[in-house]
Amino acid sequence: MKPIVFWFDFGSPYGYLMAERIGDLAAAHGRTVQWRPILLFAVLRQLELPAPMAHAAKRDYLLLDFDRSARHLGVAYRHPSRFPVISPLPARLFQVLAQRDEWAAVAFARAALQAAFQHDQPLDDADYLGALAARFDSRDAATLLQEAQADAARAALAASIEDAVRQQVFGSPFVQIDGEPFFGADRLPQIEARLSGCLAPAHRE
Amino acid sequence: MKPIVFWFDFGSPYGYLMAERIGDLAAAHGRTVQWRPILLFAVLRQLELPAPMAHAAKRDYLLLDFDRSARHLGVAYRHPSRFPVISPLPARLFQVLAQRDEWAAVAFARAALQAAFQHDQPLDDADYLGALAARFDSRDAATLLQEAQADAARAALAASIEDAVRQQVFGSPFVQIDGEPFFGADRLPQIEARLSGCLAPAHRE
Repeated sequence: MKPIVFWFDFGSPYGYLMAERIGDLAAAHGRTVQWRPILLFAVLRQLELPAPMAHAAKRDYLLLDFDRSARHLGVAYRHPSRFPVISPLPARLFQVLAQRDEWAAVAFARAALQAAFQHDQPLDDADYLGALAARFDSRDAATLLQEAQADAARAALAASIEDAVRQQVFGSPFVQIDGEPFFGADRLPQIEARLSGCLAPAHRE
Repeated sequence: MKPIVFWFDFGSPYGYLMAERIGDLAAAHGRTVQWRPILLFAVLRQLELPAPMAHAAKRDYLLLDFDRSARHLGVAYRHPSRFPVISPLPARLFQVLAQRDEWAAVAFARAALQAAFQHDQPLDDADYLGALAARFDSRDAATLLQEAQADAARAALAASIEDAVRQQVFGSPFVQIDGEPFFGADRLPQIEARLSGCLAPAHRE
């Protein structure tokens, strides 16, 4: 069976919530997950959609709902003191690790998301992020950070963003199961029902 | 205890899904529900927010998700052949019925939403809507339709829209439990957890 595709932005609170759950949920149903970091602002700009926090009314609600949704899922959450989170560096480091070992990249992604949304660690801190990435790779932090600025990592991330635009990935998290799209951490119950066969595949109208 | 406030637009598929569930859910926890129809396009215009279906990428997703969310909740759903649904007439008829009997207005609202989202009945059909409203009121259909065009019904609906703008009700359905906002039919599990005491009240950051 094809892997479940999980699109996320490293700065997205709901993306973090999904990241804490999707791997175990997929494994429980014999499926693997392909993790695809994007820069959501770049995708939304190309899709001509507004950013989720752009309007005051929605921003107030989201600030309340991030924490509530985490409590509802039983996931630890501490809202970053600097928000929005600046996410290009971890997205590029992910690509650098994935060039050698996809699962190392996923382990790094989980650690970076937990750093941001449990431990208030800024994700644009190169010293911190380089050291974190080096825990999952045989290359040292300085080399990994250098690679993250190189053309290959930039091109890989740009390709993911292009794929996301083409596939209308208009938010984070965005999950695809055999092509069927699920937007938002609040779709976890439907994803579980879909994987366990309680919910039939959806077809576009 | 104060009633749970349930804001909805008669043309909103997710509003219909919430309408099918919120009354029983509240009653199971000893609470009542105040139903407040609005015209979402008017609220969003004043809040300077785009309509949910304004962008093609989101529209395609929503058309798939309406039906899937209904199946997940076990609620009957047939997508209206004319969409978006034109909703001012049922919103005004609701006000006319509510002037005399709030529960008659709620019963009418449930019937009108089911007409739209189960039986493909257009909600701008005055003959149909007048007859439907008359089932819940001692006045005849012609009188109710006349009242729906009168100043009192228009003013009551306008006041609800103003209240919604002031309280940042930026979507349909939008539920408030003791002031805490829950946006979307996908917040039903959190609403249930909140009412049963499994989820503590949220406070704004």
